[in-house]
Amino acid sequence: MTDTDVMPTRSLVSPGRIRDFFSPRSVAIVGASETSSWGINLMRSLELGGGAPQLEFVHPKYPELFGRRTVPTLRELDKPVDLAFVMVGPNRVGQILEDAAAAGIRNAVTLAAGYTEAGEEGRELQDALRRQAEDLDITLMGPNTIGFINATLGIAPWAVASHRAPIPGAVSAVFESGSMCRAAYEYTQAHAIGISHWVSLGNSAVMNTLDVLEYLIDEPSTRSIALFLETVRDPERFIPLAHRALAADKPVVVYKAGRSEEGMRAAMAHTGAMATNDAVVDSAFRQAGIVRVESLEELVATAGLLGHTRRRPVGRRMGVVTSSGGGCNVIADLAHREGLSLPPWSEPIVADLQVHLPPFAHTLNPLDTTGFGHARARPRPTKAEDDLMEIAVREPGIDFMFTMMTPLPSERPADPAFIESRMAIIGDIVKASPVPVFLASNTNLDVTDYARKLLHDNDLHLLPGVDLALRSIGYMLTWCDRRTSILDRGPISERIDPPGVVGPAGTWDEWEGRQLLQHGRIPVVPARLVTTAEDAVAAAAELGDTVVLKVCSADIPHKSDVGGVALGLSGAAEVADGYRRVTANAAVRVPGASVRGVLVSPMRPAAPELLVGVTVDPTFGPVLTVAFGGIWVETLKDSSLRVLPVSRPEIRDMLFELKGITMLTGGRGAAAADLDAVIDAINDIAAAAVSLGPDLVAFEVNPLRVGAAGPEALDVLIVTEER
Amino acid sequence: MTDTDVMPTRSLVSPGRIRDFFSPRSVAIVGASETSSWGINLMRSLELGGGAPQLEFVHPKYPELFGRRTVPTLRELDKPVDLAFVMVGPNRVGQILEDAAAAGIRNAVTLAAGYTEAGEEGRELQDALRRQAEDLDITLMGPNTIGFINATLGIAPWAVASHRAPIPGAVSAVFESGSMCRAAYEYTQAHAIGISHWVSLGNSAVMNTLDVLEYLIDEPSTRSIALFLETVRDPERFIPLAHRALAADKPVVVYKAGRSEEGMRAAMAHTGAMATNDAVVDSAFRQAGIVRVESLEELVATAGLLGHTRRRPVGRRMGVVTSSGGGCNVIADLAHREGLSLPPWSEPIVADLQVHLPPFAHTLNPLDTTGFGHARARPRPTKAEDDLMEIAVREPGIDFMFTMMTPLPSERPADPAFIESRMAIIGDIVKASPVPVFLASNTNLDVTDYARKLLHDNDLHLLPGVDLALRSIGYMLTWCDRRTSILDRGPISERIDPPGVVGPAGTWDEWEGRQLLQHGRIPVVPARLVTTAEDAVAAAAELGDTVVLKVCSADIPHKSDVGGVALGLSGAAEVADGYRRVTANAAVRVPGASVRGVLVSPMRPAAPELLVGVTVDPTFGPVLTVAFGGIWVETLKDSSLRVLPVSRPEIRDMLFELKGITMLTGGRGAAAADLDAVIDAINDIAAAAVSLGPDLVAFEVNPLRVGAAGPEALDVLIVTEER
Repeated sequence: MTDTDVMPTRSLVSPGRIRDFFSPRSVAIVGASETSSWGINLMRSLELGGGAPQLEFVHPKYPELFGRRTVPTLRELDKPVDLAFVMVGPNRVGQILEDAAAAGIRNAVTLAAGYTEAGEEGRELQDALRRQAEDLDITLMGPNTIGFINATLGIAPWAVASHRAPIPGAVSAVFESGSMCRAAYEYTQAHAIGISHWVSLGNSAVMNTLDVLEYLIDEPSTRSIALFLETVRDPERFIPLAHRALAADKPVVVYKAGRSEEGMRAAMAHTGAMATNDAVVDSAFRQAGIVRVESLEELVATAGLLGHTRRRPVGRRMGVVTSSGGGCNVIADLAHREGLSLPPWSEPIVADLQVHLPPFAHTLNPLDTTGFGHARARPRPTKAEDDLMEIAVREPGIDFMFTMMTPLPSERPADPAFIESRMAIIGDIVKASPVPVFLASNTNLDVTDYARKLLHDNDLHLLPGVDLALRSIGYMLTWCDRRTSILDRGPISERIDPPGVVGPAGTWDEWEGRQLLQHGRIPVVPARLVTTAEDAVAAAAELGDTVVLKVCSADIPHKSDVGGVALGLSGAAEVADGYRRVTANAAVRVPGASVRGVLVSPMRPAAPELLVGVTVDPTFGPVLTVAFGGIWVETLKDSSLRVLPVSRPEIRDMLFELKGITMLTGGRGAAAADLDAVIDAINDIAAAAVSLGPDLVAFEVNPLRVGAAGPEALDVLIVTEER
Repeated sequence: MTDTDVMPTRSLVSPGRIRDFFSPRSVAIVGASETSSWGINLMRSLELGGGAPQLEFVHPKYPELFGRRTVPTLRELDKPVDLAFVMVGPNRVGQILEDAAAAGIRNAVTLAAGYTEAGEEGRELQDALRRQAEDLDITLMGPNTIGFINATLGIAPWAVASHRAPIPGAVSAVFESGSMCRAAYEYTQAHAIGISHWVSLGNSAVMNTLDVLEYLIDEPSTRSIALFLETVRDPERFIPLAHRALAADKPVVVYKAGRSEEGMRAAMAHTGAMATNDAVVDSAFRQAGIVRVESLEELVATAGLLGHTRRRPVGRRMGVVTSSGGGCNVIADLAHREGLSLPPWSEPIVADLQVHLPPFAHTLNPLDTTGFGHARARPRPTKAEDDLMEIAVREPGIDFMFTMMTPLPSERPADPAFIESRMAIIGDIVKASPVPVFLASNTNLDVTDYARKLLHDNDLHLLPGVDLALRSIGYMLTWCDRRTSILDRGPISERIDPPGVVGPAGTWDEWEGRQLLQHGRIPVVPARLVTTAEDAVAAAAELGDTVVLKVCSADIPHKSDVGGVALGLSGAAEVADGYRRVTANAAVRVPGASVRGVLVSPMRPAAPELLVGVTVDPTFGPVLTVAFGGIWVETLKDSSLRVLPVSRPEIRDMLFELKGITMLTGGRGAAAADLDAVIDAINDIAAAAVSLGPDLVAFEVNPLRVGAAGPEALDVLIVTEER
């Protein structure tokens, strides 16, 4: 039994196989016609690609296509091609793949639609296609793809319109939507963003996003990776890959649809996959060091910035030089939005800047060079604003420089000497700068061919308009922050002991839940389980002045709602009366409930209360939620969540994401709580929940009271799978 | 004494004068040279404009310019021109204006910089320029402007680079920044957005934003107005103009810098103007029916949409048809962001759609037409997606239709018959549709000349990418909502009686503040002012079981901070002791304070408490703030504000903007409060504050307790100007 037998699909999509797939020196085009736009577009794209793979044409009817002789099937080729590009309908794909295998071909792109997106019948068709590819040892892309572009090699089997040669560069991208893949590619072209691999995966019958991601992490020309996801499947593979990308210093930027219920519904309709809670996706991405963006434009601009720049800022202090006063105001507002600071220039820099500025100029950051900035400088051919930028980049108080450039000429001027030497000087300033320099246009207009050449010749990158530019810079800094904190924190141990306490299948009663908390060394309020009013009175006398009684029954998980809780009882009469009341209420409101007894606990004075819960997401598994109780969670939705496991520093981050955190840190005159103890308790609650393994359904300590003596669980609800 | 003598500047910038200013049939260009880029750009812009005004050249040195004879000064012209375009430095502008007036010229554009933006000396220079223009009866634009474009007439005295002819249309715009004016103009050109007037005002020595706004409200080719503001001055004129624009059905869309402190600082440095609180600007705009956007791209796209569409949606229910499955997901998420709903298609529409869809398609909204949507339909030359859209627009449950189009060809194809007749059919579908139809590209790529022609010939408007498209639609709907509610509510009476109570200059003590509240018929907790412990005990006996004592002194506005308040006292001993304690604390902590006495009030049980305050903004005057007390305002910054005056329905809106509103509406089992009484109390508090006229500094009722018996002021602090 070989590896291929064990995991046939995975061996077809190993990084080595995928490298071969994306590097074909010969391509057979199967089923194209000279009148179909798919065929015309494919030919144009291959030609623009420039890498000139050897082309073969396969068609049973036309003896000649695009001026070349055809063969009727792949079997008639003289020797196997590296890639078959299959443009036939779904009913004919099977035969083509048989022919391909017989001809010794190991890679195929399949455009045909009508598979998983087409209901049950289509799903069966796609399953059959996958099994066939596995049987034939063919690495298959698609079905329902538009192809790919390998700009590094100039190979572009891309069946939609192309207008320009691919721009080789450092951004690779994988799309689970063909139309979005095309749209984003056109956006890179319009903004002179160089790419390495641009991949439309279609329905992912064989090759999927994670296969390509794994390949790209080690692909040398790729420096940033953009993903367009419709769903997140297989997080057990995705998250470790994301960590590998982080360690390899390759930022992963993701657009993931499904923020809204409508978006989730649309995604599910389109792909047939189950959707997960979007807030969980957010957390999982953040924990994996992935940056999530909100539009295609952001995806391209952010990946483009991260792919181009080899120097990332070490902080959020920005210097700005621009010749537009209005631009200064706009940039200052955008900086605020992105959490960037604009420190004042230090004295020596101010002195140097003033030499080049008119006497009336204000030497602020952002620096408005005024109309004077447009003036040509002497002796070298620059504008004054360039000279000012060269001074300002020496400012020791900034982490990077940002400038909104005056628009570049759209066409080569009659006398290009000034602009071309000016751009070369700007290139030199940027290279020699002690801090990274980011250039932006004022709005996100397309970059013309001539402007692209000016930029490219000087290794410059122009961000598309100040709004999107600063958004991209913000995302870059977020990625840098996450990378540092994740790599600093190191791996999280996932070893969890089994629970040591065996509970029932389904809802546990509070007594059972308390056993598990105690076993997990989580501080729990004392309690006595009693079954008579007399015992309740005795327990109360033992426990303190004032007590709480709670009906204990797996059938009554929400005991307050049925009058199953009595608060603040003191004295034998009140306790005995309370006992009778809560048991009577339970009997009347939940007839037939199996009642273990009544729990007697001391009544605690008011203190901040946390909700600490673990639920199970269909995609990501156990998810920890931390919130303050009362209005904080009910009205304000003030909660924080993370996919488990989490580290203690991350639990601290969770607490500090809550608006109510001032209740624990000593705001408004209150004493500060022992945060380490709270973090320990939350960590132990998460561990206790996870110890239940696949049986876990829900685990909620609510409230975890945070008093002067430390945290203490006042109630717990555990639900496990009904087997 | 003529009108001109009374308000010289205003008569220079009357709508009639401004109409003449923007409609010159002859232009004299003063001081241009053939080598300056300003002059070259101006000539190119005038030529591209196409309106061909008669040009005269004025230069003391060059006998010929751009192939035409010059005259040395304006005085040598045969007859007066309609507009002088003055391109000389600030030291020569005065003489040119003298010449212009002598030649009978009444309008001038002045490019020169070095005025208010250049410190004190520049400000004096600009004042002198304004006075000179007034004396000479010259309507002056600038200084520090780049000119304007009147696309309706094809007149483009515009001194920066132009690449294409202006596109005549319905959007007019006024900019307080030349570089942003230029950037936004180029963005309109790139996105085929037709304009009417595009105006860079520079430093506004004479003609300012409000003058042009006033003109545009009645200018017939203008249907939407975009403003780029660095500051808001003269709200007494601005707000009524905004209301006039609303009544005239001309949306005003504003980009206003200064969201952040840095932005404010930058704006102040640039213009020398005082900045106002940005949240107040937000409120003032909202109250005036102005939509505030966040970027230049949004400004252009939103004004472009509002200018083009003659049919605005009556609600937020959107139908979507697109051939991109990935696009459906993206659009659904964006719809959620903008608060749009996506109702399911009704049965008859589903039936009709299914006729045109493959059997496996899901008939959801957004409707994914699948790759099938790209197929050509029969018998008329459309794509299937067009036919599907034509069906879907008949859906009675939607207010408008949105579609992400497949990309238009960037150049005229060899055989354009299909695309051109298809676009004509789409134009017909849009025209005949029962609901407005909005088309968008997938990302915000520039629109090529050919695509622009396809759109223009069929009266179609293409929004720039789905992200910006749905943002613009969201802004449009916000504008529609505001317009309706403002026009529905009618005018707000501003008549406020004088206070009837005379207080001191500076801080009032609580007793004085209570007099004003009582005079204003605002419910106030009962109180007795006492000056001995014995009187305090007597007052307490009269007022209730439990009382509160508060030191009453204008010198101790924050009495809790100094121990000047004693809560929950009952019985003679506690009250007497409390009296001694609060007076002693006041004497020790604020030595020398003038103490009127001690206020004795009944202690009220816990209930929701509001803060109702009026402060004075340097630009907009009295501003009303409403918030819940405690954590709501301190931790959560949960407050709502409005520039006064406000209507009662608007006070209701303010309350419902607060997260804590559930405390009053009966959330969490609490009883609902009498909201009308709360609104009345807030309204009366605002009126009492405004009754103080220009003396008002601050007026705060905190708390206004909202109990079962209605609202009741428990404390008040009034501050008036120290004269």
